[in-house]
Amino acid sequence: MGETPRDETPTTPTRRGFSRRALLGTGAGALAVGAGLGAAGRPAVAALEDALGDHEPQDVVDFHGEHQAGIVTPAQDRLCFASLNVLTKDRAELISLLKDWTAACRRITRGLDVTETGFDGGSEYAPPQDTGEAHDLSAAHLTVTVGFGRSLFQDSSGKDRFGLKAHLPKGLIELPHFAGDQLEDARTGGDLCIQACADDPQVAVHAVHNLIRMGFGVVSTRWMQLGFGRTSSTSTAQATPRNLFGFKDGTANLKAEDSAAIDDHVWVRDDSWLSGGTYLVARRIRMILETWDREALSGQEKIIGRTKGTGAPLSGGEEFTPVDLNMMGSGNQPIVPVDSHVRLAHPDTNHGVQMLRRGYNYADGTDTLGNMDVGLFFIAMVKDPATGFVPIQKKLAREDALSEYLRHTGSGLFAVPPGVPADENAYLGQQLFEA
Amino acid sequence: MGETPRDETPTTPTRRGFSRRALLGTGAGALAVGAGLGAAGRPAVAALEDALGDHEPQDVVDFHGEHQAGIVTPAQDRLCFASLNVLTKDRAELISLLKDWTAACRRITRGLDVTETGFDGGSEYAPPQDTGEAHDLSAAHLTVTVGFGRSLFQDSSGKDRFGLKAHLPKGLIELPHFAGDQLEDARTGGDLCIQACADDPQVAVHAVHNLIRMGFGVVSTRWMQLGFGRTSSTSTAQATPRNLFGFKDGTANLKAEDSAAIDDHVWVRDDSWLSGGTYLVARRIRMILETWDREALSGQEKIIGRTKGTGAPLSGGEEFTPVDLNMMGSGNQPIVPVDSHVRLAHPDTNHGVQMLRRGYNYADGTDTLGNMDVGLFFIAMVKDPATGFVPIQKKLAREDALSEYLRHTGSGLFAVPPGVPADENAYLGQQLFEA
Repeated sequence: MGETPRDETPTTPTRRGFSRRALLGTGAGALAVGAGLGAAGRPAVAALEDALGDHEPQDVVDFHGEHQAGIVTPAQDRLCFASLNVLTKDRAELISLLKDWTAACRRITRGLDVTETGFDGGSEYAPPQDTGEAHDLSAAHLTVTVGFGRSLFQDSSGKDRFGLKAHLPKGLIELPHFAGDQLEDARTGGDLCIQACADDPQVAVHAVHNLIRMGFGVVSTRWMQLGFGRTSSTSTAQATPRNLFGFKDGTANLKAEDSAAIDDHVWVRDDSWLSGGTYLVARRIRMILETWDREALSGQEKIIGRTKGTGAPLSGGEEFTPVDLNMMGSGNQPIVPVDSHVRLAHPDTNHGVQMLRRGYNYADGTDTLGNMDVGLFFIAMVKDPATGFVPIQKKLAREDALSEYLRHTGSGLFAVPPGVPADENAYLGQQLFEA
Repeated sequence: MGETPRDETPTTPTRRGFSRRALLGTGAGALAVGAGLGAAGRPAVAALEDALGDHEPQDVVDFHGEHQAGIVTPAQDRLCFASLNVLTKDRAELISLLKDWTAACRRITRGLDVTETGFDGGSEYAPPQDTGEAHDLSAAHLTVTVGFGRSLFQDSSGKDRFGLKAHLPKGLIELPHFAGDQLEDARTGGDLCIQACADDPQVAVHAVHNLIRMGFGVVSTRWMQLGFGRTSSTSTAQATPRNLFGFKDGTANLKAEDSAAIDDHVWVRDDSWLSGGTYLVARRIRMILETWDREALSGQEKIIGRTKGTGAPLSGGEEFTPVDLNMMGSGNQPIVPVDSHVRLAHPDTNHGVQMLRRGYNYADGTDTLGNMDVGLFFIAMVKDPATGFVPIQKKLAREDALSEYLRHTGSGLFAVPPGVPADENAYLGQQLFEA
């Protein structure tokens, strides 16, 4: 390579927003080999602030905070989700990876390469420290949210793997079998999860790809799921998107602006390490579109309990009009049918339980019979899965008319630790490992 | 449903650009049950023009033209591709489906529902004619490009299926086995293909979903592939994106603005029904990222023949500087290595052959070993696959240093008929069926 002219001039225009290079004013070289930023021992957060200077872009979601980002953050359009197995038996190695991930997340959520050395700034004889595919792209509102599975605390025989068993949070239960579950082992469980959400799918894939790469030999990928379009709003400023059944989804979702409800239903508040965190429930729900698409409009609407057009409840009004579960129609039958999804999932029929949903449409090709493998990758953030998810899912699985068109093929439950303070020594999961 | 108040007021804000409803000024009801547009026998194209009125949105790519859209159209960011089997043995039924698809494409490429009846305007006792998931979204530059596989003209025993065998175009060959091919039957071949590209993946998925749905009983899905991000530019106005190896991809791609080169390398020009059409080569190319990511930067750059940062050729200059294949470096070795991808794929080493590439990054989760199933869904448009694709792929498969990191797992070759004129009686593939 010594004979090859290397071009270090500022480079291609970004596709949208700030480019990673533009952030630095003078091109990547300035950060990689420039003014001594990030020399050994230099505090990482301060160096990062220096590097960014006045260039804090508009499409950055702060990685730091009391809670992890990617929970009440307005749901971005694209998802890349991964569940990992931990291979190492060494607690220190696991902590070291979480520290590396933290440093990487601080940078990639600002649209920077994973490390200061970046994707072409290191030794030409070493593998690049960043895989490069997001290098020209903006931060794209990237959030990275990490969770811990039950199997991280104890293996299936109950053995303590990393000295964490005493800190197994009470909500991190084994999810029961629900009626109709057809879970595939290769899409279920995991010791760790990474939820990367962004406006640009390449930015989300890059995040997961690089965190996995940094964990080579320490973790391995158990399963991975791309979500091409969000199906929930988590902010009142967002329009309600439609799922692949063609219905608006998540109209009655918890919204970030309702901080009292978020406090009641999402954040764990106790004296444990998990206080300020939450639980992430993931369900890969295949939709049997071939059958659904042959259902009459009136049938579809009775199954959902809302009109397909506006999303208004069958009891009347507009999209955000509260459902009247008691309104009776002809034949003295409830207008919102007893087996409709909206009734069975409604807080009034579930002891007031609500979830913060953050799901995504997926399309993974076809099965061996040529049916489309498409559906909803359901994600919900809940304060306590045992009361906030299991009872409602038990009921839906048994009674919901919609269940006939659904097949749960994957599942995961993860404890999501609280956020990382803007302190160079803080790291993801520190509250657990120092509990 | 008679007892349920249906809300027909103009509805939710669109997420971007024009909404399907806003297009119509007065809400979907106006089109569905309104002023008699599209009454039986009313010419479809004229009615469509009326319905759109002055509201032609900015993000519409015209479906009509000498060539199909989605070929030289500036490559949109998202892809949904499907390969279909034809189930019917009835030529008239196949033609009828192509006519239905044509009518649907005229509408969905303008951001309208599949039919005038739409997704909630029909009888409540009939299945909706549009599945609804893109109803609130803009046209998103949607293009739908349809192609015909060799098996449509004759089955594997050579039998004429639909009276088309005499019109089998000479370029629609059986692709040979290439060194290292690991093609999966469930990702290979097909009688028909649909390439839907759009700015919004939900719009692309909706297009494929609805065309498949309209073909229930006539066609079945053989395979389907989502591409989350484009890896090629087809216009000089587009920045070059990066593939999942982190390199800029398609720097030297044919560009739509170079109409002479497009004429030379893309459009079939003869006296057959295919004149004005082209051939679409699809290859699902898995990238073995776990191995690639451990390769040194200099090794990666020598394999590609370009620098990772700017994409400049190793012979020097900037991204768009022509590669100098003859420049010698130390040890009297070519600076652009003899087994580098850029050299082996270069027109100068391939009798001047060029392709119009239109590929997409994909991420389909993990394999049974936990390795990421990610890579490039390669699409190329070529005038003659026998000279414009097969020789170069034979060479790459044998000699390209990059092949070690690639695994071809799916393949398809389709003849892409010329475009549909803006005439209500014209339909996709008419030139073939009336040849």
